[in-house]
Amino acid sequence: MNRNKIIEQIQLKKSFLCVGLDTDISKIPEHLLIYEDPIFEFNKRIIDATKDLCVAYKLNIAFYESMGIDGWESLQKTVEYIPEDIFTIADAKRGDIGNTSKKYAETFFSTYNFDSITVAPYMGEDSITPFLEYPNKWTIVLGLTSNDGSKSFQNLTLEKGNFLFQEVLESSSKWGTASNMMYVVGATKAKDLQEIRKIIPEHFLLIPGIGAQGGDLEEVIKNGINNDIGLLINSSRGIIYASNDQDFDSKSRNEAMKIKNRMSKYM
Amino acid sequence: MNRNKIIEQIQLKKSFLCVGLDTDISKIPEHLLIYEDPIFEFNKRIIDATKDLCVAYKLNIAFYESMGIDGWESLQKTVEYIPEDIFTIADAKRGDIGNTSKKYAETFFSTYNFDSITVAPYMGEDSITPFLEYPNKWTIVLGLTSNDGSKSFQNLTLEKGNFLFQEVLESSSKWGTASNMMYVVGATKAKDLQEIRKIIPEHFLLIPGIGAQGGDLEEVIKNGINNDIGLLINSSRGIIYASNDQDFDSKSRNEAMKIKNRMSKYM
Repeated sequence: MNRNKIIEQIQLKKSFLCVGLDTDISKIPEHLLIYEDPIFEFNKRIIDATKDLCVAYKLNIAFYESMGIDGWESLQKTVEYIPEDIFTIADAKRGDIGNTSKKYAETFFSTYNFDSITVAPYMGEDSITPFLEYPNKWTIVLGLTSNDGSKSFQNLTLEKGNFLFQEVLESSSKWGTASNMMYVVGATKAKDLQEIRKIIPEHFLLIPGIGAQGGDLEEVIKNGINNDIGLLINSSRGIIYASNDQDFDSKSRNEAMKIKNRMSKYM
Repeated sequence: MNRNKIIEQIQLKKSFLCVGLDTDISKIPEHLLIYEDPIFEFNKRIIDATKDLCVAYKLNIAFYESMGIDGWESLQKTVEYIPEDIFTIADAKRGDIGNTSKKYAETFFSTYNFDSITVAPYMGEDSITPFLEYPNKWTIVLGLTSNDGSKSFQNLTLEKGNFLFQEVLESSSKWGTASNMMYVVGATKAKDLQEIRKIIPEHFLLIPGIGAQGGDLEEVIKNGINNDIGLLINSSRGIIYASNDQDFDSKSRNEAMKIKNRMSKYM
């Protein structure tokens, strides 16, 4: 999916919501467990209930991978079920030496046909460039993450005075363009967003951590928005686990609607 | 597998060789393609040919993952085929927020029963500690990698004067012990090994990059060895793709034997 198409969908839906399908068999409503593939059944209903309110779905690969082959089957069916005009994210946080990253790119861009993948920057340039070779596919690099552990290394000050995560944004943004790279920026650090926008004014930011992880939506939008909106804001648990009842999907829809309505004001 | 068992195997076999099963369907001998699962057939023969010469097998997950469900089946059969006294490494380079890292740990330690997994440190402490909760399992953190891209960030100088990779070793080594953590250290940087040994004298180092990636075996051993040997030295392509002939496995054995013999001198 190219950049124009993403922006067009955002304008059309007046939303830049990404729904995170971190689907965990131990957390989905019990009445779904009678289905042959409860994970897919759950995802299908969440997708049906939210697809007009969001512009992206993010699948957290760990949740599928941990179920072995069954999990990969649920993942494949889910990606195929997502309407074509919605951006898909493999939240996989991969990254390895060149010939291996090439294989990871093949996995998520060819085998599973995702529009994008999240990657970890620690191994540097040649671990990321293989992902950039696919036309109309996106590489979403970890910049500043929303977890406590981001303090361990991302917030270290370098000799030249900036933080490591700032250096990651600055260096890596030169390896691609704002039309094939995005950045993960943790919403719990909304105050850092202004600084980040100075380094990468045009790139889309994938912002996790609204809801369960405690980020403030309005503050994130105010500080992160650019002329093309430039934001995909993710909510996973707050939407998909809104209820365990028979009508869990309409409860999920309500939660997604609330966020979407707060977003629409900024359009 | 606990630390004593690893050391015992090294002493017994007079080897600290790790064979990397980066098995690529496009690179294995053509005559294997008639088998139902050519990847497993290849791995089985390589394992049979090298199991008395090495103490570890490292499976590069990307190569299996990129083949979809078939790949995961080959991976599972391969892990089960490896003799129990040989250390198994899921070279997966995972790492995410706590609840997600927990799922990755579940995948590789429970679903597939690997002895260890490689993890990327960028997301910090809470992305790594979930892996450390499994008794007799190992977390192998990326320290200094062997690719060109290691210069992008790992070699950046911090405000306090050390390199990022040194800080990663120093900080993260406090989250576990030398009995449940190892480090990936790129062999092409053998001169850095002495410095690294000052920071983590006791930890095992997993050293890739012998052979195809050009590291010098003797220099690595001289600079990296400790009282318990403390090294697992990996060779992938140099061993497994030694030949495409009918007797590819005995050619692989020859290559493994050469390295093993060079190692035995240091025991």
